Amino acid sequence: MRRATPDLLERTGAMVQPALIEAVGRLPAGLALPVRYHFGWIDQAGSPVPNPRHGKGIRPALALLSAEAVGAAAEVALPGAVAVEIVHNFSLVHDDIIDNDPERRHRATVWKTFGAGDAIIAGDAMMLLGLELLLDRPSPQRVAAAADLVRATASMIAGQHMDMSFDRSGDVDVDLSWEMVSLKTGALLAHSSAVGAILAGAPERTVRRLRTFGLELGRGFQAIDDLLGIWGDPSVTGKPAGNDLRERKKSIPVAVALASGSEAGERLADLYAGEHLDDDGIEAAAALVEEAGGREATATAARDCMRRAADALGGADIDTRVAGELVDLAAFVVERDF
Amino acid sequence: MRRATPDLLERTGAMVQPALIEAVGRLPAGLALPVRYHFGWIDQAGSPVPNPRHGKGIRPALALLSAEAVGAAAEVALPGAVAVEIVHNFSLVHDDIIDNDPERRHRATVWKTFGAGDAIIAGDAMMLLGLELLLDRPSPQRVAAAADLVRATASMIAGQHMDMSFDRSGDVDVDLSWEMVSLKTGALLAHSSAVGAILAGAPERTVRRLRTFGLELGRGFQAIDDLLGIWGDPSVTGKPAGNDLRERKKSIPVAVALASGSEAGERLADLYAGEHLDDDGIEAAAALVEEAGGREATATAARDCMRRAADALGGADIDTRVAGELVDLAAFVVERDF
Repeated sequence: MRRATPDLLERTGAMVQPALIEAVGRLPAGLALPVRYHFGWIDQAGSPVPNPRHGKGIRPALALLSAEAVGAAAEVALPGAVAVEIVHNFSLVHDDIIDNDPERRHRATVWKTFGAGDAIIAGDAMMLLGLELLLDRPSPQRVAAAADLVRATASMIAGQHMDMSFDRSGDVDVDLSWEMVSLKTGALLAHSSAVGAILAGAPERTVRRLRTFGLELGRGFQAIDDLLGIWGDPSVTGKPAGNDLRERKKSIPVAVALASGSEAGERLADLYAGEHLDDDGIEAAAALVEEAGGREATATAARDCMRRAADALGGADIDTRVAGELVDLAAFVVERDF
Repeated sequence: MRRATPDLLERTGAMVQPALIEAVGRLPAGLALPVRYHFGWIDQAGSPVPNPRHGKGIRPALALLSAEAVGAAAEVALPGAVAVEIVHNFSLVHDDIIDNDPERRHRATVWKTFGAGDAIIAGDAMMLLGLELLLDRPSPQRVAAAADLVRATASMIAGQHMDMSFDRSGDVDVDLSWEMVSLKTGALLAHSSAVGAILAGAPERTVRRLRTFGLELGRGFQAIDDLLGIWGDPSVTGKPAGNDLRERKKSIPVAVALASGSEAGERLADLYAGEHLDDDGIEAAAALVEEAGGREATATAARDCMRRAADALGGADIDTRVAGELVDLAAFVVERDF
């Protein structure tokens, strides 16, 4: 791990955190409670947590760097950075209800703590709060940022819905799987990487390059995440070995293997069609995904994404030093001891 | 019932319905399905419903009249009319999950038909779609309308959350109850009544008058709804007699009675603190609310709201004929055979 990136996240976190706390403070007290709990600032009873655990704050960091990348001060991007962090966390609160997940970041989830009704309402309030931050004193740049956030959030939700229907339907299609990943994971990271430049009033072609960077980062991240879901070390991922296979997720490596037309792919399809996968079945499935080329193809695709992400920042319109920070941050996000 | 208002709703519905269908068509197919089902256009399998049942379309009608009230064409308000109808319906989809309601408009609710996960996601997508309609090609008027919609929706959600906490906590306060009503029911009707004028670029003081009209209409509507929740005819309301008392809701008449300091109020508090209200208990509770002045005070308050609503439209800046239509529409919404 490069030392520079944790330092960077500390610097951006120090800017974003007070603004985030201030923004959440705009909510009525009853609604602010589950939101503060979700962010890890307070416990269930409302008492401050001594050393609160946060997420890493990747999205707001991207937003601030995105302004610096076009020669503006990071402060210009602050409302966008806070808005995207809140909207990202809205999606976590709702996803945890949908997926019936009892824990996140080693704590009970919002729905588990406050009930599904309060978690639905708190998520709705978070989505609106994010948009309010940008539409409050609307300059043309803030309006453009708000419109971009609305589109990106709608894409994320469309991707989440595609993912849910993949898990139900029998069909798999590698292109559709990538489209789902672009929507579910890519869209909000693309917005994060572009919103600072939008708020700084950068030209559309520069915004587009930063957006491409974020989209490819998201696709690369998800590809690696899918590999970790099968071959990740449980002590690192915090999930049982082969967890994605146990849940018969149609992740990228699985989609590649199922669509390979190989004998291994067919045997994998038979395993996935069966009733239950025990540990031996999971091990066999992982071997079949690898034999059918799913592991290699996904690792190659992840590398290609990261190269395209870096290439997108190569133009003269983007500050070279900041481009380096963005590429380092992308590597930090994606690599995760894989 | 005045004949003019159903004719008006038919005219505004004929304008709004095609635009609403077109807007929902922007959603990815998988997400459009539960939304179309919710609007009553298709059945669960996706087949068109022969004579689809709609809501009355009060909010879009208010939006279109709001533009005409300031001398603009109704068409100017169309994106705002469609947006507020979609956002209102987002709130119904989420509310039905939260309240665990299996039926709406004599059909199974979205969560009951497609599952809670799909209903949460469909609601999220609807909220964003409403905002997209206004932020798509952002003029200053559309941006102002979008910002107003975001604020109104956030208020509605804050009111919904207050309502949920009232039902849990022991405290009642008449002022707080009215504040809850203003947020939960008033805010989106206030937005509906103002958004046409906002989109027409009317001056702020005119917008404010229309907003007041919608807010008072919402408060008056809710006061009457609360009376119907206790004394409404089950064959008209579609709910069992005294339903709000059975669920021990702290509606306005109940809040007034509990805060009255009268002996009847104290006996009502005892009844509400008990385990279960049978039919005799409900009848006794209704009599106590009336004896403690809750019925009379609420009916008076509703009349006051409707008078303030009409008064708000009295200025020279608002077209007299359209003001008359708005007042008729308000009476139509509120009166409901009471």
